[in-house]
Amino acid sequence: MTSLAPLVGLNTPSALVDVARMRRNIDRMQARMNALGVRFRPHVKTTKCLEIARTQAEAGASGITVSTLKEAEQFFAAGFRDILYAVGIVPGKLAQALALHKAGCDLKLITDNADIAAAIGRFGQEQQHRFEVWLEIDTDGHRSGITPEAEALLTVAHALVEGGSQLGGVMTHAGSSYELHTPEALEAMAEQERAGCVRAAERLRAAGYACPVVSVGSTPTALSARALPGVTEVRAGVYVFFDLVMANVGVCAPQDIALSVLTTVIGHQPEKGWAIVDAGWMAMSRDRGTQRQPHDYGYGQVCSANGDVAEGYVLSGANQEHGIVSLAGGTDHEIARRFPVGSQWRILPNHACATGAQFPEYQALGADGSVQTWPRFYGW
Amino acid sequence: MTSLAPLVGLNTPSALVDVARMRRNIDRMQARMNALGVRFRPHVKTTKCLEIARTQAEAGASGITVSTLKEAEQFFAAGFRDILYAVGIVPGKLAQALALHKAGCDLKLITDNADIAAAIGRFGQEQQHRFEVWLEIDTDGHRSGITPEAEALLTVAHALVEGGSQLGGVMTHAGSSYELHTPEALEAMAEQERAGCVRAAERLRAAGYACPVVSVGSTPTALSARALPGVTEVRAGVYVFFDLVMANVGVCAPQDIALSVLTTVIGHQPEKGWAIVDAGWMAMSRDRGTQRQPHDYGYGQVCSANGDVAEGYVLSGANQEHGIVSLAGGTDHEIARRFPVGSQWRILPNHACATGAQFPEYQALGADGSVQTWPRFYGW
Repeated sequence: MTSLAPLVGLNTPSALVDVARMRRNIDRMQARMNALGVRFRPHVKTTKCLEIARTQAEAGASGITVSTLKEAEQFFAAGFRDILYAVGIVPGKLAQALALHKAGCDLKLITDNADIAAAIGRFGQEQQHRFEVWLEIDTDGHRSGITPEAEALLTVAHALVEGGSQLGGVMTHAGSSYELHTPEALEAMAEQERAGCVRAAERLRAAGYACPVVSVGSTPTALSARALPGVTEVRAGVYVFFDLVMANVGVCAPQDIALSVLTTVIGHQPEKGWAIVDAGWMAMSRDRGTQRQPHDYGYGQVCSANGDVAEGYVLSGANQEHGIVSLAGGTDHEIARRFPVGSQWRILPNHACATGAQFPEYQALGADGSVQTWPRFYGW
Repeated sequence: MTSLAPLVGLNTPSALVDVARMRRNIDRMQARMNALGVRFRPHVKTTKCLEIARTQAEAGASGITVSTLKEAEQFFAAGFRDILYAVGIVPGKLAQALALHKAGCDLKLITDNADIAAAIGRFGQEQQHRFEVWLEIDTDGHRSGITPEAEALLTVAHALVEGGSQLGGVMTHAGSSYELHTPEALEAMAEQERAGCVRAAERLRAAGYACPVVSVGSTPTALSARALPGVTEVRAGVYVFFDLVMANVGVCAPQDIALSVLTTVIGHQPEKGWAIVDAGWMAMSRDRGTQRQPHDYGYGQVCSANGDVAEGYVLSGANQEHGIVSLAGGTDHEIARRFPVGSQWRILPNHACATGAQFPEYQALGADGSVQTWPRFYGW
């Protein structure tokens, strides 16, 4: 438990990181990956923060996953070399990718499209450069990718190799695992993700392509997989902080959540049971990811300034710089006494990736009561 | 209509401002305020952009409204002096407000709370400084403020003046106008907002307080008020860009929306009728403000790269850096032909304040085809 003392001097709203919780989350995931015998490539889109990515690397991670080329540039400049850009590349971004390669970055691209595969080849030939590209596989129908049995798998592989690119592997992300909330369903989804991606690799190998890498992952499936035969690496991002969506999924408890927003009470509407705080959607983000989950936390779970859950109190409404704290499913007419003006509280977020993105920096609270400012970057 | 040419070199996603549309929106609002005989104090929280606030000032605005003290600091440093900080002040932020005052900023604070009013007085006496404070009035029950007939109105006024602060006026924001969508309801809400705020001022004056300023406003009510007797100034923010929420409210057309997100198609799921683009929620924000309105646009309305509405096509889903473009209420099996990989599109946002906040800068597209980069700031 972090002591209250260091918070007093912090501006509100601030994005707090409980460093002890974060380290536990990092160690838990890395230990699990070690036990499963796979490499772990954290997705740094959750934090966009060098201090945190370094902690993940020190714990044993191999390389990083990024969601933008700006992340690749920033992390490469800070010494990260093995980088997977896990959003389908478009021809207009190849020059930026090439510049990274030429500077020494071991950047891997992905695609699921034959036209783009051909365009990568043309650009590579013009520039006398061989890009490493992984094929994106669709194992759960939630977004992009080629299904493991689709004819397109071989068509796109052919277009890549024919164009002179290196087919480095296959990757998938079972994002629909976020919609589940039982261990059985999660374990089944982890197996579906694994089996589909391994099957795609086997089909490619049977057709004569090497396909050394088989990369899978999402926080829920990574923490639910029983075994990962055929998989070479796992990716996950939000586990580093966890959040209320993940608590609903069942892969963490609210007490594991390492990110919160510090806020101050600015007024009340006592007859409505409302305390008004200075954390609105600009601080929390507009993410309402728990809306359709078993437990709807509004815009976040209220905790005391030292991190203890204030059972039943949620951020029930949010304007740009105003949040409404109230008792879920009831009216607390004593709210002004319980949440006096000027008092500080922490709000646990629905979605750590979205909430973190609202802040230029984290305030990292050490178990010893220290506070460090860890910058994060944004934009593209 | 902006020509396509300048867009080719822009990174995606980018936040585009159609400067001609923005100027029309600014001129429309200022002309209306001039006709109503009131001063206009734009809320710069929508854009956090000096170039845009200067355009509003040149059109005739008087002072600005801010939602954070960081906005106050940034705009004051750029030459804006008359600033209303329109979020209830807390004692922990008084030192920051004092520093602005001492530097020459004519900063007005607000509160609706007697304890805070007393704390402002104590701090002011310690620092030998007299703060100007306005009372926040609740005219529609949507958030903060004292209702016009409440006893608290005089209690808080007394606490302010007793503590040595200057009671500069009353202010209200009928934010529930965002939930309406007929001219009659909007006009009635504008009158309710006006009448409530004027009534609060009259009660204060009857009790012996000067209360020179009566400040009201939201974009929907500002554009719907027939007459504003007793009001001295109006505030509004989102009108400068407008957005799909405002189109649903009925105070603009989609063709008036000056902010959009430029995006590139990165792949397809043809059997589902999906085009995958590189604008996800990190670009659009998680704001789903049109979800409960007459027309639900998902995460945004798709337009061609030159700004023409692609009727029926919306951003129906969003992950962090992936968006799903599809035909609302149908499946376009020809989507890959209509939205080829590498093609660029603009997405109109649900909520311009939230979407703008995701970007470090705007790309301002002039009617002459020029592109200028206008920085915006974020954080607290």
